[in-house]
Amino acid sequence: MTSSTGTTRRTVLRRATAAAGALGVGLAGVPTAASAGQRERIRVAVLLYDGFTALDAVGPYEALCRVPGVRVVTVGRKAGPVRTDTGQLALGAERAMTDVPHADVLLIPGGGNRGTIATMNDPSVLAWVRRIHQHSTWTTSVYTGALVLGSAGLLRGVPATTYWASRPYLAETFGAVVTPGRFVESGKIITAAGVSAGIDLGLHLAARLSDDEVGRAMQLAIEYDPEPPFDTGSPEKADEATRQLALKLVADAAAP
Amino acid sequence: MTSSTGTTRRTVLRRATAAAGALGVGLAGVPTAASAGQRERIRVAVLLYDGFTALDAVGPYEALCRVPGVRVVTVGRKAGPVRTDTGQLALGAERAMTDVPHADVLLIPGGGNRGTIATMNDPSVLAWVRRIHQHSTWTTSVYTGALVLGSAGLLRGVPATTYWASRPYLAETFGAVVTPGRFVESGKIITAAGVSAGIDLGLHLAARLSDDEVGRAMQLAIEYDPEPPFDTGSPEKADEATRQLALKLVADAAAP
Repeated sequence: MTSSTGTTRRTVLRRATAAAGALGVGLAGVPTAASAGQRERIRVAVLLYDGFTALDAVGPYEALCRVPGVRVVTVGRKAGPVRTDTGQLALGAERAMTDVPHADVLLIPGGGNRGTIATMNDPSVLAWVRRIHQHSTWTTSVYTGALVLGSAGLLRGVPATTYWASRPYLAETFGAVVTPGRFVESGKIITAAGVSAGIDLGLHLAARLSDDEVGRAMQLAIEYDPEPPFDTGSPEKADEATRQLALKLVADAAAP
Repeated sequence: MTSSTGTTRRTVLRRATAAAGALGVGLAGVPTAASAGQRERIRVAVLLYDGFTALDAVGPYEALCRVPGVRVVTVGRKAGPVRTDTGQLALGAERAMTDVPHADVLLIPGGGNRGTIATMNDPSVLAWVRRIHQHSTWTTSVYTGALVLGSAGLLRGVPATTYWASRPYLAETFGAVVTPGRFVESGKIITAAGVSAGIDLGLHLAARLSDDEVGRAMQLAIEYDPEPPFDTGSPEKADEATRQLALKLVADAAAP
């Protein structure tokens, strides 16, 4: 822990946070040499498409955006607002696909039927996904985002997961080897299960892009000590009526 | 379960999902009589302000937006894109505060120091929060959003929680009775802990606004079966070095 200047890392951290002010949430607005020097070394590109699921994108964003040296960039067919699957929310795509020729991490969120299918069948998106994947360090997905990776031809014979209700489709249509797990790491491809699984994936990536110390700190920063009110978070734990109702609620809330 | 027409609820659900198509994610794009009839009966207003934390808003949104009859509305000082605390993402505020005189559920996300303090000191926001609270069914917060509720005068003597590092400030400045818990329900006020705690709060609200059956189904719909990669999600579980690093990462990533 001791550097050549005799200052330990822990001392520096204590010194920084001692000035953090009454709210205890840090030195907002005071850029540090460390963060400035590390800016945009690692680019995480999150694809946003009409009908994507917000939490699929925002869970990993929140786990990754404070990792030293990481910059999360939202990418759309064009820059500007992109509507989610329910139509009740929009996130901004900062860049157009054509302006993002490279990323260290590619993340494809899932979406409702309409948005996922349209994206699976969009040649320009698939070409971009393949191009980014060629030089990425990690190529990742959440929820039905795995179907987009599959449609781009990246999952044939690859152990992978997706939304619980889409597992058979992923295997039958794209030849993925559906594998149990909150997320499945196969070489540089990591596919996560549905929606909230992107948080687990994001913290895993935070540690991989930095170290376990940063992973642990980011988990505390987002206070990820979950206490789900029910025990129905996976299809294996839920009964048939709950599974059917979940499918119906998702279908009924889908924006036209 | 049997209605006067002899059709059970379960039969209807099975029938609906039988037509849900190969992806298994539902009948996207086919509005149902049920969802159309229930539209906007329950309005959830999520305040977005410059410097808010994305997951604080999106976690509850994702848990609530598919609950029958619920419509989530993002509300800003004015309508349009609102930047998050890191400046790396923007969410769209659908409505201006002045256009939203009433909501059944009010949700105040937290943010970095800069955004939280500015909001705590904005008389127009505080007046709006008090006005909505007067007739709300639930008034809720995530992370440092509790400080905004506190600044609006709503937490004096009220059991409440907030971001772990802001607990002393919440008690000392606004007279809240800081209480352990993933979220704390005190009459119609529910305050959640940091960032990801909004998902637990959201699923709890989903059940309260509908029933436990819907809560359980929404937990499955977002596949909330968390497997955090570390065991550092609360300050009690993390060591001092992890706590200090978490504060530093949040501070360093704050947008000016």
